[in-house]
Amino acid sequence: MSKPLILVTNDDGINSKGIRILVNLVNTLGEVLVVAPDSPQSGMGHAITVGNTLRLYKTKVFNGIESYQCSGTPVDCVKLAKHHILKERKPDLLVSGINHGTNTSISIVYSGTMAAALEGAINDIPSIGFSLCDYSADADFSHTLEYVKRITAQVLETGLPAGVALNVNMPAVNSGAINGIKVCRQARARWQEAFDERVDPYGGKYFWMAGDFHYLDNGEDNDVWAIKNNFISVVPTQCDMTSHETIQDIRGKLEG
Amino acid sequence: MSKPLILVTNDDGINSKGIRILVNLVNTLGEVLVVAPDSPQSGMGHAITVGNTLRLYKTKVFNGIESYQCSGTPVDCVKLAKHHILKERKPDLLVSGINHGTNTSISIVYSGTMAAALEGAINDIPSIGFSLCDYSADADFSHTLEYVKRITAQVLETGLPAGVALNVNMPAVNSGAINGIKVCRQARARWQEAFDERVDPYGGKYFWMAGDFHYLDNGEDNDVWAIKNNFISVVPTQCDMTSHETIQDIRGKLEG
Repeated sequence: MSKPLILVTNDDGINSKGIRILVNLVNTLGEVLVVAPDSPQSGMGHAITVGNTLRLYKTKVFNGIESYQCSGTPVDCVKLAKHHILKERKPDLLVSGINHGTNTSISIVYSGTMAAALEGAINDIPSIGFSLCDYSADADFSHTLEYVKRITAQVLETGLPAGVALNVNMPAVNSGAINGIKVCRQARARWQEAFDERVDPYGGKYFWMAGDFHYLDNGEDNDVWAIKNNFISVVPTQCDMTSHETIQDIRGKLEG
Repeated sequence: MSKPLILVTNDDGINSKGIRILVNLVNTLGEVLVVAPDSPQSGMGHAITVGNTLRLYKTKVFNGIESYQCSGTPVDCVKLAKHHILKERKPDLLVSGINHGTNTSISIVYSGTMAAALEGAINDIPSIGFSLCDYSADADFSHTLEYVKRITAQVLETGLPAGVALNVNMPAVNSGAINGIKVCRQARARWQEAFDERVDPYGGKYFWMAGDFHYLDNGEDNDVWAIKNNFISVVPTQCDMTSHETIQDIRGKLEG
């Protein structure tokens, strides 16, 4: 039996520690193809490159593993892998990450890591985004490896429902012992920005986006709660953004 | 009574025809603030500028209307408007567009127009994204104005459910007479890319992303059906991407 084909991407860029860890790990489970951004693409959400050109170069970042770096976004990487590099052959699995930083709750809409996984799901590829709740470039991933491997192997074995990608977040190493896995929903929250206004050497104003996470939930069945309580959170996610339960109400107001 | 405050943005850039039409129209309904990208940002999805700086300049593009152009994405514009320009004052309405091009179905995840509207909804601002199914820069919007005005006025009057933004798509002028408004769900579909490979003057390869829309639905209650049948489609949208109905199934596989 041929080995499963595993597509790996991320949003921190092909030279980040998180993708190196992930490539080494899934390389024990199948044949690996890496297509990842050539530079950090955090916060790119589901952006694609439509008004500009894309570059794609073969690299030797990963010894003995077919790898490409792309000038575009994480979603561009998935599209190039599927429609240009692989063409007829379909990956058996897509894994994105391991992201240096949290992608729970509303952060999913800003996350390039999860956008790549969701792009996989749109194309009927079982897909998982992994994120570690630690933003440092040299973050310690060691405590998460058994969970990444267990979740990946399980999805390889049993697949995922059509159109569904897993959003996996994992506590930082200094949070203490991991209590296990919680499959849960995305917490209600939003980011409250505070723009840091500065002046450049030429007298022009510019801004850095900064902000705080505002948790607006009080359930114990959501991903923020799970992370706070030292669980690995797994949220099944999908791209139907319809608010089905408000269709009737709005129909009454607008169709009349 | 003071006039309602209406925030206007888009993803085609502050100099596009669609935003000019929208600004002129909503200017009859309230006090208008424009914060829009200084260049086209199509396909930027929910991207935000986190690894780079942002510029924001006051402009006189719209006569007598407070207007800013921003170097960032549509979502950056909404965040700067809310957290830097307005601070304590909250818009009564956010309108995004009118986009030059279709944003039905799965295109919502790639759309900067709808990301801006969803960012408004995340911040509890009643928000609407308007798109015309015509990509030309000089598109004819005249047949849509009564509908844009009617939907906008209705939302100003009765608001929207918390966290919900409307995704409004409108047939192109050459589609014939509009049959009315259909409030519906997002159709199932995906884009199938075909990358156009070219060689630059220095011998380097580069790519343009191109592709076809693959309609995977057969319902008559979705936005693609509505547009094909000359209705204006209105999809209530929201940012909970959890696949609630698969949580139990995946729990059985991963928590055990």
